[in-house]
Amino acid sequence: MTEILTDRSGLLPSGPPSEVVVARDVDHVRETLRRAHRDRIPVVTRGAGSGLAGGAVADAGAIVLDVSALDRILSIDPVDGVAHVEPGVITADLDRAARARGLFYAPDPGSVELSTIGGNIATNAGGLRGAKYGVTRDAVLALDVVLADGSLVRVGRPTIKGVTGYDIASLIVGSEGTLGVVVGATLRLLPAPPETATAAAFFPSLDRAAEAVAAIAVSGARPAVLEIVDAATLAAIDEAEGTRLRERGEAFLLAQTDGFGAERELAVVREAIAPLAADLEWTSDPERAEGLIAARRRALPAIERRGRVLIEDIAVPRSRLADAVRGIQRIAAETGTEIFVFGHAGDGNLHPNILTGGAPGDPISPAAEEAAERIFALALSLGGTLTAEHGIGRLKRSWVAREVGDEVHALQRRIKDLLDPHGILNPGAAL
Amino acid sequence: MTEILTDRSGLLPSGPPSEVVVARDVDHVRETLRRAHRDRIPVVTRGAGSGLAGGAVADAGAIVLDVSALDRILSIDPVDGVAHVEPGVITADLDRAARARGLFYAPDPGSVELSTIGGNIATNAGGLRGAKYGVTRDAVLALDVVLADGSLVRVGRPTIKGVTGYDIASLIVGSEGTLGVVVGATLRLLPAPPETATAAAFFPSLDRAAEAVAAIAVSGARPAVLEIVDAATLAAIDEAEGTRLRERGEAFLLAQTDGFGAERELAVVREAIAPLAADLEWTSDPERAEGLIAARRRALPAIERRGRVLIEDIAVPRSRLADAVRGIQRIAAETGTEIFVFGHAGDGNLHPNILTGGAPGDPISPAAEEAAERIFALALSLGGTLTAEHGIGRLKRSWVAREVGDEVHALQRRIKDLLDPHGILNPGAAL
Repeated sequence: MTEILTDRSGLLPSGPPSEVVVARDVDHVRETLRRAHRDRIPVVTRGAGSGLAGGAVADAGAIVLDVSALDRILSIDPVDGVAHVEPGVITADLDRAARARGLFYAPDPGSVELSTIGGNIATNAGGLRGAKYGVTRDAVLALDVVLADGSLVRVGRPTIKGVTGYDIASLIVGSEGTLGVVVGATLRLLPAPPETATAAAFFPSLDRAAEAVAAIAVSGARPAVLEIVDAATLAAIDEAEGTRLRERGEAFLLAQTDGFGAERELAVVREAIAPLAADLEWTSDPERAEGLIAARRRALPAIERRGRVLIEDIAVPRSRLADAVRGIQRIAAETGTEIFVFGHAGDGNLHPNILTGGAPGDPISPAAEEAAERIFALALSLGGTLTAEHGIGRLKRSWVAREVGDEVHALQRRIKDLLDPHGILNPGAAL
Repeated sequence: MTEILTDRSGLLPSGPPSEVVVARDVDHVRETLRRAHRDRIPVVTRGAGSGLAGGAVADAGAIVLDVSALDRILSIDPVDGVAHVEPGVITADLDRAARARGLFYAPDPGSVELSTIGGNIATNAGGLRGAKYGVTRDAVLALDVVLADGSLVRVGRPTIKGVTGYDIASLIVGSEGTLGVVVGATLRLLPAPPETATAAAFFPSLDRAAEAVAAIAVSGARPAVLEIVDAATLAAIDEAEGTRLRERGEAFLLAQTDGFGAERELAVVREAIAPLAADLEWTSDPERAEGLIAARRRALPAIERRGRVLIEDIAVPRSRLADAVRGIQRIAAETGTEIFVFGHAGDGNLHPNILTGGAPGDPISPAAEEAAERIFALALSLGGTLTAEHGIGRLKRSWVAREVGDEVHALQRRIKDLLDPHGILNPGAAL
C-alpha cells in the first residue's frame, strides 16, 4: 500500500488517501473525475511512481488514481512513424516494440525501464538522447485527455505537422497531472539509427571537461548522447563497483554519435576533445560501447548506496556548464553536504545529487535543504532553470514564481483555473 | 499603402484601418496595445505580409501594427546553440548569420527570403527541412511577448530543456497574433550539416511515387528533405521554364539527406525507390543538387503565371498520401477546377494550389471555393489536418471546429478570452 502512495523522491504523503482507484479503462477514469469534480475531492494521478519531485504523492484525503494498468500499445505504423499507446505503457517497452519494426522512441529518461509514457508526458521527461532528439514534448503528436469534469477530449493531431488552433497538447505535456488525465497518446517514432559510435574521456580538471563540451558544440558534430560525470561520482562508482575510474581524471565525458556517419562524426568529436582529455577511448562496437556507458549508468545506484539522495535537475546554457559545476562544488563545501554531479552536458542539464542522510520520509536535513535552495538560485543566476526534465512536483513549488516571474506565474494559475475550476487535479503540484 | 494591408492570400481588407503603427521599439508596441486595450480597438500585427491565409489582413477600423522594423539579430552563441532576435528578422538572414558561425536555423518555409521570424512564429511555419528538423515550434526556446493589455512577459527559457510551469511559449507559437505580440525570440540553432546528397526521381504513376515515400519511411533513412510534385505542376513548370519534366513521369520526388553519412544514407533512399522509379538521378555536389531542387522551387511561380491561386496546406498521415493526391485530382475533375499539387511528402504535407481566375481581392470563384471545402473534408476524412504550416488565418476559420471538435474549440476560445479579454488581438483570425 505504501508503494502506491509515494514516488522516488522520498516524500511521504501527509496522510492516507480517501480512496485508491486502479483504473480499468477510460470510462473508469472519466467516472472517477466526474465524481471528484462534483464532490470537490483532489485526484492525484500516477503511473509507475518513478517521479523524483513528489508530483504523484497524494495528500491526505485525495483519490489516488492509478492508470498503470492501461498499458496497451494500440498500434505502431512504420510508414506514418506513429504509435498509439495507453498511458501505462513502460517507456522501454514502447522503444523495444518500435525497434522490432525498425523504428525507435527517442525519449529515454534514466527511468526508462520503470517509468510510463503517461508519467513521461506529465514531466516532459528527457533523457540521454535529448541532446539530439529532444524531450517527450517533441515526440507527442496528440493526446486523449480526461478533463477535470470527466469530459474526454483529443488535443493535437496524428500528423507530423499541424497548426489548426492553439497547441493545447504542448500545454498538457509537463503539466504534472494538474490540467487533465492523459488516457491515450499518439507519439512520433523515428527510424532507428543504423550505427552508433561512442567515446569516453577523462579530463585533468572539470574546466577542461567543460571546455570539451564547448569544443564539441562548435565542432560541427551533433552527438546523440553527451554525458558528464564529476569526480565525486566517479569515486562513488569505484566504491560500488570496484572500478578505478577516479584515478583517471577529475571529470568524465561520454559522447555517442549515431546515424549513417556515426564513425566519421565521432572522429570530429574526438578531434575536438583530444587536446583537452587526459585519457580517451572509443569504439563503434555496440557491446564495447555498453562498457563505456556503464560508468554513467551506474552513477545513481552508486550514489544511492551512500544514503538517501535529493536528486536535483537544473539546466543552464551550455556555455555556463563549468560555472554551474564549480558553483555546486562550492555550495557543497559551504553547506557541509556531499553533492555528486552527473548529467546531460549536451543539454546543459545537470543532476546534483545531495546526500541527505536519513530514511525516505524523514525530513530533509537543513544542510541539504539549504544546498538545494542555493543550487536553484545558482541555476537562475546563470540564466538556467530549476528543472529540465524531472518536473516541479511538490518539492520545488516555492521556486516556480522566482523562475518564471510573478506575472507569468499568475497567468499559469489562471490557465489552471480555466481547466480545473475546482482545483481537484493534483493540487499542491507543479505551480 | 495597399501593400501593408494585405498578404499573399489575395484577401483584401473590408475597409481602411484606423491607423498604421510602424513600431520603433518594444515600448512603442506596448504603448499601442495599452491604448488599443483601453479603447477596445482591434490590433492586427504583421511582419513581411507573406502569409497565405489572411492572418494579417486587418478589417476596417483596426490598428495595423507593423513590427518589421524590429529586425536586429541581437546575439548568436555557437556554444549554447542559441540566437536572440527581434521579430522582424528575415528568416533567411538569421540562417545566413548562423551559417557564418557554423550553425544553421532549421525551419525554412518557402517564403524564407521574405518572411520574418515573427511571422514564422505566428503560423508555426514549417518548410522543406521539416521532415527531419521539425517546425518553428521546435526551434523556439523563449519568447518576449506583449500581452493584450500592454504588459511584457517572457515565456519559455533560454536553455534547451526545461519544465518549470506550463508551456506558454508553445501556446503562443501558431496562435497567429491572437494571444499576444511577439517582440523577441530565443531560438535554437543546430550545427550546420557538413554534407548533403540529393536524389531526384520520376515515377510512372502517382501511386508509385507514394509507394516510394512509404518505402523510404521504412528504409531506415531519414531524409532532411522529401518533396513531391504532381504531373500538373510539372507541366506548369515546363511551360514556364521551357524544361521537359512532364514527359519523364507522372510524379516527381526529391530527396535530400544530410550529415556525416549523407551519401550512405542517400544510397539507402535510392535502393528503396529504384524499383519504383522510371528515372532516377542523384548527386552529392551541392551545385548539381541545386539543379535537381530547382524543379521543386519553381513550382509555385510557375503555377502563379497561370493566374491567381488559392494555396492550400493540408497534411495527412504519410500512409494516406496517395489517397490524398488521388482525392484532390478527383475533386479537381468534379469541380471543374485546375489544381496543382506539390508538398512536403516526408511530413504528409501537401499544398494543393487551386487556380481561381480573377485578380487578388476578387471573390474566390464558387468552383474554387467548393474545391477548397472538399479538400478540407478530404484531409479530415484521411485523419489529417486543414493546415500544416500556413495557419488558419481568416480563410479557414469556419473549419476549425470541424477539425478539433466543438469542445476543444470552446476551450481554445476560453484561452483566447483569458489572454485577451476584450478580444482586440487579431479578431477574426485563427479560431
